[in-house]
Amino acid sequence: MTATIFVLNGPNLNLLGLREPEVYGSDTLNDIEDRVRARGKTLGFEIDFRQTNVEGQLVDWVQEARTKAKGLIINPAAYTHTSVALHDAIKAVGVPAIEVHLSNTYAREDFRHHSYVSPVAHGIVVGFGAYGYELALEGLARIVSKN
Amino acid sequence: MTATIFVLNGPNLNLLGLREPEVYGSDTLNDIEDRVRARGKTLGFEIDFRQTNVEGQLVDWVQEARTKAKGLIINPAAYTHTSVALHDAIKAVGVPAIEVHLSNTYAREDFRHHSYVSPVAHGIVVGFGAYGYELALEGLARIVSKN
Amino acid sequence: MTATIFVLNGPNLNLLGLREPEVYGSDTLNDIEDRVRARGKTLGFEIDFRQTNVEGQLVDWVQEARTKAKGLIINPAAYTHTSVALHDAIKAVGVPAIEVHLSNTYAREDFRHHSYVSPVAHGIVVGFGAYGYELALEGLARIVSKN
Amino acid sequence: MTATIFVLNGPNLNLLGLREPEVYGSDTLNDIEDRVRARGKTLGFEIDFRQTNVEGQLVDWVQEARTKAKGLIINPAAYTHTSVALHDAIKAVGVPAIEVHLSNTYAREDFRHHSYVSPVAHGIVVGFGAYGYELALEGLARIVSKN
Amino acid sequence: MTATIFVLNGPNLNLLGLREPEVYGSDTLNDIEDRVRARGKTLGFEIDFRQTNVEGQLVDWVQEARTKAKGLIINPAAYTHTSVALHDAIKAVGVPAIEVHLSNTYAREDFRHHSYVSPVAHGIVVGFGAYGYELALEGLARIVSKN
Amino acid sequence: MTATIFVLNGPNLNLLGLREPEVYGSDTLNDIEDRVRARGKTLGFEIDFRQTNVEGQLVDWVQEARTKAKGLIINPAAYTHTSVALHDAIKAVGVPAIEVHLSNTYAREDFRHHSYVSPVAHGIVVGFGAYGYELALEGLARIVSKN
Amino acid sequence: MTATIFVLNGPNLNLLGLREPEVYGSDTLNDIEDRVRARGKTLGFEIDFRQTNVEGQLVDWVQEARTKAKGLIINPAAYTHTSVALHDAIKAVGVPAIEVHLSNTYAREDFRHHSYVSPVAHGIVVGFGAYGYELALEGLARIVSKN
Amino acid sequence: MTATIFVLNGPNLNLLGLREPEVYGSDTLNDIEDRVRARGKTLGFEIDFRQTNVEGQLVDWVQEARTKAKGLIINPAAYTHTSVALHDAIKAVGVPAIEVHLSNTYAREDFRHHSYVSPVAHGIVVGFGAYGYELALEGLARIVSKN
Amino acid sequence: MTATIFVLNGPNLNLLGLREPEVYGSDTLNDIEDRVRARGKTLGFEIDFRQTNVEGQLVDWVQEARTKAKGLIINPAAYTHTSVALHDAIKAVGVPAIEVHLSNTYAREDFRHHSYVSPVAHGIVVGFGAYGYELALEGLARIVSKN
Amino acid sequence: MTATIFVLNGPNLNLLGLREPEVYGSDTLNDIEDRVRARGKTLGFEIDFRQTNVEGQLVDWVQEARTKAKGLIINPAAYTHTSVALHDAIKAVGVPAIEVHLSNTYAREDFRHHSYVSPVAHGIVVGFGAYGYELALEGLARIVSKN
Amino acid sequence: MTATIFVLNGPNLNLLGLREPEVYGSDTLNDIEDRVRARGKTLGFEIDFRQTNVEGQLVDWVQEARTKAKGLIINPAAYTHTSVALHDAIKAVGVPAIEVHLSNTYAREDFRHHSYVSPVAHGIVVGFGAYGYELALEGLARIVSKN
Amino acid sequence: MTATIFVLNGPNLNLLGLREPEVYGSDTLNDIEDRVRARGKTLGFEIDFRQTNVEGQLVDWVQEARTKAKGLIINPAAYTHTSVALHDAIKAVGVPAIEVHLSNTYAREDFRHHSYVSPVAHGIVVGFGAYGYELALEGLARIVSKN
Repeated sequence: MTATIFVLNGPNLNLLGLREPEVYGSDTLNDIEDRVRARGKTLGFEIDFRQTNVEGQLVDWVQEARTKAKGLIINPAAYTHTSVALHDAIKAVGVPAIEVHLSNTYAREDFRHHSYVSPVAHGIVVGFGAYGYELALEGLARIVSKN
Repeated sequence: MTATIFVLNGPNLNLLGLREPEVYGSDTLNDIEDRVRARGKTLGFEIDFRQTNVEGQLVDWVQEARTKAKGLIINPAAYTHTSVALHDAIKAVGVPAIEVHLSNTYAREDFRHHSYVSPVAHGIVVGFGAYGYELALEGLARIVSKN
Repeated sequence: MTATIFVLNGPNLNLLGLREPEVYGSDTLNDIEDRVRARGKTLGFEIDFRQTNVEGQLVDWVQEARTKAKGLIINPAAYTHTSVALHDAIKAVGVPAIEVHLSNTYAREDFRHHSYVSPVAHGIVVGFGAYGYELALEGLARIVSKN
Repeated sequence: MTATIFVLNGPNLNLLGLREPEVYGSDTLNDIEDRVRARGKTLGFEIDFRQTNVEGQLVDWVQEARTKAKGLIINPAAYTHTSVALHDAIKAVGVPAIEVHLSNTYAREDFRHHSYVSPVAHGIVVGFGAYGYELALEGLARIVSKN
Repeated sequence: MTATIFVLNGPNLNLLGLREPEVYGSDTLNDIEDRVRARGKTLGFEIDFRQTNVEGQLVDWVQEARTKAKGLIINPAAYTHTSVALHDAIKAVGVPAIEVHLSNTYAREDFRHHSYVSPVAHGIVVGFGAYGYELALEGLARIVSKN
Repeated sequence: MTATIFVLNGPNLNLLGLREPEVYGSDTLNDIEDRVRARGKTLGFEIDFRQTNVEGQLVDWVQEARTKAKGLIINPAAYTHTSVALHDAIKAVGVPAIEVHLSNTYAREDFRHHSYVSPVAHGIVVGFGAYGYELALEGLARIVSKN
Repeated sequence: MTATIFVLNGPNLNLLGLREPEVYGSDTLNDIEDRVRARGKTLGFEIDFRQTNVEGQLVDWVQEARTKAKGLIINPAAYTHTSVALHDAIKAVGVPAIEVHLSNTYAREDFRHHSYVSPVAHGIVVGFGAYGYELALEGLARIVSKN
Repeated sequence: MTATIFVLNGPNLNLLGLREPEVYGSDTLNDIEDRVRARGKTLGFEIDFRQTNVEGQLVDWVQEARTKAKGLIINPAAYTHTSVALHDAIKAVGVPAIEVHLSNTYAREDFRHHSYVSPVAHGIVVGFGAYGYELALEGLARIVSKN
Repeated sequence: MTATIFVLNGPNLNLLGLREPEVYGSDTLNDIEDRVRARGKTLGFEIDFRQTNVEGQLVDWVQEARTKAKGLIINPAAYTHTSVALHDAIKAVGVPAIEVHLSNTYAREDFRHHSYVSPVAHGIVVGFGAYGYELALEGLARIVSKN
Repeated sequence: MTATIFVLNGPNLNLLGLREPEVYGSDTLNDIEDRVRARGKTLGFEIDFRQTNVEGQLVDWVQEARTKAKGLIINPAAYTHTSVALHDAIKAVGVPAIEVHLSNTYAREDFRHHSYVSPVAHGIVVGFGAYGYELALEGLARIVSKN
Repeated sequence: MTATIFVLNGPNLNLLGLREPEVYGSDTLNDIEDRVRARGKTLGFEIDFRQTNVEGQLVDWVQEARTKAKGLIINPAAYTHTSVALHDAIKAVGVPAIEVHLSNTYAREDFRHHSYVSPVAHGIVVGFGAYGYELALEGLARIVSKN
Repeated sequence: MTATIFVLNGPNLNLLGLREPEVYGSDTLNDIEDRVRARGKTLGFEIDFRQTNVEGQLVDWVQEARTKAKGLIINPAAYTHTSVALHDAIKAVGVPAIEVHLSNTYAREDFRHHSYVSPVAHGIVVGFGAYGYELALEGLARIVSKN
């Protein structure tokens, strides 16, 4: 049976491609989903790709990964900087999680320099644009295969 | 065709009139809606007036304004001080937004002195009570008419 | 008619018993609900016991307590440290609220040392594990009986 | 007898229109005065419009408003961020004061994010350019008419 | 043989009932002692109830509890916020300690928001007035019975 | 020849008696002047009593004291907290200066807790209301008589 | 019957005259006591003059003043900067207290710039050396005579 | 026609030579003026040399430079550290400005380490005593000749 | 001709495999070099792999990359947190740089949470152990191929 | 006559050997006393070895050293971090003082990283366990012999 | 014999002219060297001009100046903000040092606003581009000629 | 075979005896080396004594100690306060290290109060001048003999 990987996207990522292309690039979230799915196929993973603007919904999905997924890629977007709830969820479920950011958050406003997710992530991939999701999946594959 | 203005209200504003009247006044949110709608009619705007306690719902509505509204008045209430997600949404949609607060937040607790919304707002109206919504609408009308 | 007490539980508490038992103990949320219900019966209270991962949902429930409950026990979990919206809701509804934490939050990470809920709580019970809910109910009974 | 409103302008506002038009717009202070005076006529107010670069002069004028004006609009410009003397004067005179800023000070340097005037202002209008003075006058008219 | 519980009270608690009754209530320390003793009898504990204004005396008593008591309830009052010595003593003696505060310290001055005792307490009870001592005793009884 | 003492008063002190009497008392600045003058007569001093709202004017007067006065009493009011220029002036003139505050500035807002004048004052008298000027004069007399 | 004034001295003041005379002057504590006693006689006060190195002893004495003294002069020395217990005691006893410091604490190390006693003192006298006790007594006489 | 350079001096610089010579040297402001004037002659500049203790006066003069001067040397003295108004004025007038300090402000008190003027200055010369004005003039000549 | 990629390693990385294996894994730096070289071959890159304990040496090598390399992978180790010189070098050379960390620096001591390199990096890969170098190379290949 | 050295021990050191042996070692305070006494004999010193939990008692003893001891070894334990009174006492008595800590306080909680005693100590010995007292005595002997 | 002046340049200055010309100008370090050498000839100085990327090398050179140079011009570049070692070296050698920066560091990132070198420099020249070296040499000549 | 102890000295210590003798004493580094060597002979250690101004060189030597030394004495001088690289090196090599400072760093500038080396040192000796090296060696001997 194929293992499933959750790819969870936080607030405003549904506007990707429309929103500040000089910061986030011109790829839409669908473009990213297609590529992650393709790369997943190569690596033998089924990809469950979702987006929400609701913090609690992200928490629900992370919890769902506990029984349904082998690993977790998460771009928490704005909730990166404000959500202790996501921190707790990721720590609680015990499924390896990779944190991804499209832009280089450390080259932007001060309030984007702190992440509540980073301390509980297994790996972090920042600043590679859409391609960062593929790197995250590669990295996750390596971790999952070791477990 | 009449242009639409979104008027979005954040958490606990549904309790207006019931909650700490010495801080927020005795007007209910319905009273405010009526007056904004009346003033909107004068200015030639249709008013879409909403309230929610959910941060992600506010984000959804701000995004919805992108295609449905000419402008946006937002009283983010408590999320003013904690929501990077709202900051990102307003910045992303490219629709002029006016931030409104009923009470003078700068005369209250320290944690109410910082707003994540202010840096991305086109204008800010603070401390005029319910009447502040009408001022915001006047101000927005001026901005919209210039665009 | 029996008075009702709301017992509201925040994000990730549904994982109780599964999640970091060395920190939170091995009781599940159902175990706690049973014991609170039992103790409520002794004290003459009906217990309305709920859990959610959504901040705005917690705000809705606190508001609901305004007309439906005599008192409120809340374990806001991660939202303790980030939710001004909960602070405002509890302050607005005028129903006595007891804040409960299973673990000793003051013995953990720095970001767990600040609570937006504490300044508006009538009482605070920290570190007694699941038994803290029963102590909170005892304390609340005393407050309610005085009103 | 017509009521008088003081409109007080702080340092460097005499350069308006000449100074950083991309930040402050191309209106001169005279343009603003004309419009405020016109709007004042509509509202039944006499406008006393002044500008100074001297902090103590602003304090003198605020004190003068105590006996000569019904209300006060003040754009303290740079003194917004450094003048406890203005804070004390406005608090002392007991005349309702509206704080106005042409640009969105919260989208600029950190040292412009704190205002000593805001905690003692009745209302605050930020970021509407020259039009903000007219909104302030509308808001002040409402407050004055209630007293 | 009956187990002993130390109930230790810090500076100015001897003035209870005389001092700021709107903050601390009208119960005297003797009233509290009586009720704790009564509740102790029910739970099968002998209560050793003491008060001092001297930090070092509190440290001595905490140390004394090491061999003479099964548990420890402490209201360190002002020393809560300044005493590393108490922190060390409680950590050293290995007897379970419950921290109690009559008023809600988190709703008061900033310097009362930090406790050196909390990180080494087994449980914390805040804001229930005199009744908080009884809740603390209940909670302690549960902990002691488990050991 | 009688020695002269300068008594310099900063911004808004001309409103004394009119302004927040619960904070500053009901004495006017003239009342204070009369009493200081009377006490000066007893101590053999001529009193030169002045008030201004302009920081630079206070600096001028402090400099004037260099050649014309034996000592200096200053209530810098709001400039206490913001004026490095006053700090430099007092340090430069080498005439003993006493800092006076009518109200207890340490019991008020945080921004009133720091004084740029205190480090260069010979003595500080805070919180005695109008009588504080007389105490300052007594204290200054003692210092001057020693020189 | 003569009213009594407590004059309480904190740690290391017993070394006065021996310790850093360039900071504290050459008067011994006995010298100060004599002068305060003499000035007290003039003003019709009995002086109860004490010194201790123990924080809790100072708290005891402040409490004792509640029933035995009309007013309180306190030089808390080092405990000025660290004692919340003294803050609470002075606030609790409701007897007017004057805080005195021999040296200008604001011209010394940073940790001497904050006082826990100042916010609850009726008046503060700083930097006049031994003579400051006499000024404090004068000031206290005025306050006591008003009550 | 000879180009004019404004040389503006802030508070207490009129006391130069009298005030703390170990910090500021023994040159008077007149001495400096003579030397700057002489050096100006060599470089083909007319020097307009002024001093004031009033912040707003400095702002006026900076504004005056807009139409009357080719460049501006300013020693803002104490206002360096507190004047946003000067910052705004220099930024507004678009005339190159050189900031000069006689003493090494970075070797003195912490509050002298921050300058509101530096971010808008074209060049900064610190610690060369009176000779720093001449270096500033040399530097300014180079900048002016390039424009 | 094959393009060259510099892989630069900072202080103490030569101890890899020997040093705290529970934090850094058991791979030696040679193991990593071999794998990066292999992966480089697949991607058509020549790998120039170096290590030094000297900050200035790292700066020299980054500068060398300006003319000799198409891209740069750097694990600055301890210099991540202290080196402005590395920040400036990477910014100056205009060659895309990827920052790599073996361990999750955000889950360790506070002083490891800030990176001077991150704001000037094109991408960041954290926490994947030795495999992170391979992900960085994949990511860099993508960037280089776009240029 | 043999010179005397005071060895003063602060709060909770009487529990040594019983308390957290993994931090403080298994030596009791008596063991340390014996060894210090033995080493003192070799060096020709009489050792006066004391322990107290009371801050003011430590202050008394430090003062006593002024006339009775040639030097002073002090392990202020918890009071290290909170006692300005100890700072003042050691500074006042003019007897050389060595500060000793058994454990490496800089490897523990943040609040143990600051010492009020260090700035007035002649030497500091940290982290050598019980043996640190002997090193302190050696160091003190050297200082005393030089005086 | 001609006196020698050391002109020491820190990390990345060898890239001058190549690196961010909009910040640092288009002059190369060789251009600067030529001009400094020429100006040195006029002033009767031999110039020893060096550059290094290694902090310790800069320290070595500053030490070398102790016996070989009459004065020292240093542009520490990135080490300005991080090097206590340079601070100590300059303080130790007792040769007058002038700190130079090409760009206005106070108009750039926050981490460039603090200099460890400034407090021990005799003079500071900031923001004049390459010409700042010449001004520094003029200023140094004046200082050296006085010694 | 005799065990070797490394004694490593950081920047500017080669100037010892020449540099600020009132802070560091008049001993040269050679004097210290001689005494340490002598004391080492007594204790049966070979001493390898080195000094460098280069941070990376210190790191190299600490690493070298891993295989060549039984223990390590290090006076990191200025790098104490800035070098994470030294922290990592000492932590990595697993050889006991003693940190020594000649002067009392805690009585000097604020930036000397923090040490990156202290948390990973086995013991710390501060303020004993040159003799501190001998105490460190005594302490190290005791630690080494226990291993």
